[in-house]
Amino acid sequence: MSVITIERKVLEKNDEIARENRALFADHGVYVINMVSSPGAGKTSILERTLERLRTTLRIAVIEGDVQTDLDARRVAKYNVPAVQIVTRGGCHLEANLIRDAIGNLDLKACDLLVIENVGNLVCPSNYDLGEAVKVVVASTTEGDDKPLKYPSMFRNASVLIINKIDLLPYLQSNVAVLRENALKINPSLTVFETSCTTGAGMDAWCSWLTENARQKTAS
Amino acid sequence: MSVITIERKVLEKNDEIARENRALFADHGVYVINMVSSPGAGKTSILERTLERLRTTLRIAVIEGDVQTDLDARRVAKYNVPAVQIVTRGGCHLEANLIRDAIGNLDLKACDLLVIENVGNLVCPSNYDLGEAVKVVVASTTEGDDKPLKYPSMFRNASVLIINKIDLLPYLQSNVAVLRENALKINPSLTVFETSCTTGAGMDAWCSWLTENARQKTAS
Repeated sequence: MSVITIERKVLEKNDEIARENRALFADHGVYVINMVSSPGAGKTSILERTLERLRTTLRIAVIEGDVQTDLDARRVAKYNVPAVQIVTRGGCHLEANLIRDAIGNLDLKACDLLVIENVGNLVCPSNYDLGEAVKVVVASTTEGDDKPLKYPSMFRNASVLIINKIDLLPYLQSNVAVLRENALKINPSLTVFETSCTTGAGMDAWCSWLTENARQKTAS
Repeated sequence: MSVITIERKVLEKNDEIARENRALFADHGVYVINMVSSPGAGKTSILERTLERLRTTLRIAVIEGDVQTDLDARRVAKYNVPAVQIVTRGGCHLEANLIRDAIGNLDLKACDLLVIENVGNLVCPSNYDLGEAVKVVVASTTEGDDKPLKYPSMFRNASVLIINKIDLLPYLQSNVAVLRENALKINPSLTVFETSCTTGAGMDAWCSWLTENARQKTAS
């Protein structure tokens, strides 16, 4: 019983800091996305393909969250964008206070789009608001088409679903139409993209959507 | 600080119940494995292929852990083995008390091997002992070869690593030798199998290992 109470307090405190982060992002006209997925669904690869396409049209910064290692921040830094690595040392999700600390290492005035890549975990990050504009959940075709039903909270709290690794579909029993249908059953308002980081399929559509939303935010 | 204290108490209480579970399993000569992985790495598919091969030579029971739905228990029940579904309703891992409750629905006297399929999560289940003999971590080739470095706790606490979906290697940039090397860097004593549930590759070696270990336990 006491654990539940404390968990609630933790979430309340998190939401309070998330609201402060959101106000700060609004003040600076920064559009913020929080990318969530299972380990290995392709968040970092999608981010790399996105940076290739958009880094000359938008000023982009990245916050990487990982349980251990700075491998992802090093991958991203190759694209010459500001990147901060948060190592949670066992922690299973990012929290708003970690983002607040990380922002201290970024110049928000020189930023149109901030991409936060969360810890690879389809359960725990779903309840933690970081102050983002949207949660983007990445589901890879190889994980099977039943995942939205089995991990509904993440799909319910996301605004965008990227179905990744569609180049592997010919070799899988997984059905992308069923995956899409299951996701929309949980959350009918999801905007859905289908991508492959290997072939580049779907990346233009995703990047157009992202640019449009980041520009609206910067203009408002 | 108080959160850390309570977390420690939760783990201590969990370990106490896990010890009781372990004693109960020993009394009944039941060999217990705790299968852990990212969502969609193939735990249930490996279990299905295992049941196909072993259900006539070993008396097997299954406990399924999921955040939501009883899809996995229904898949397993088709093989005519006793199956109990634990739905955590948002909980990100199984705990020893949930296993204690689930055992109440199983006849341990009529069981040689109990397979516990944990929630799909490469972070949180690693610290929770359920009373099992071994943790079996499943990593699929599609997740990339860096996962042991990024999620070290799970690989450190496991005794067996199953590298699954090796049939997809020709279509991936992921390198199975690097994956294996990274896993052994974290935990040199891991027993490693490479499998494909689609082609059946490696399933005989895994099932032989499992049978041998379950029989030793039953005989002891």
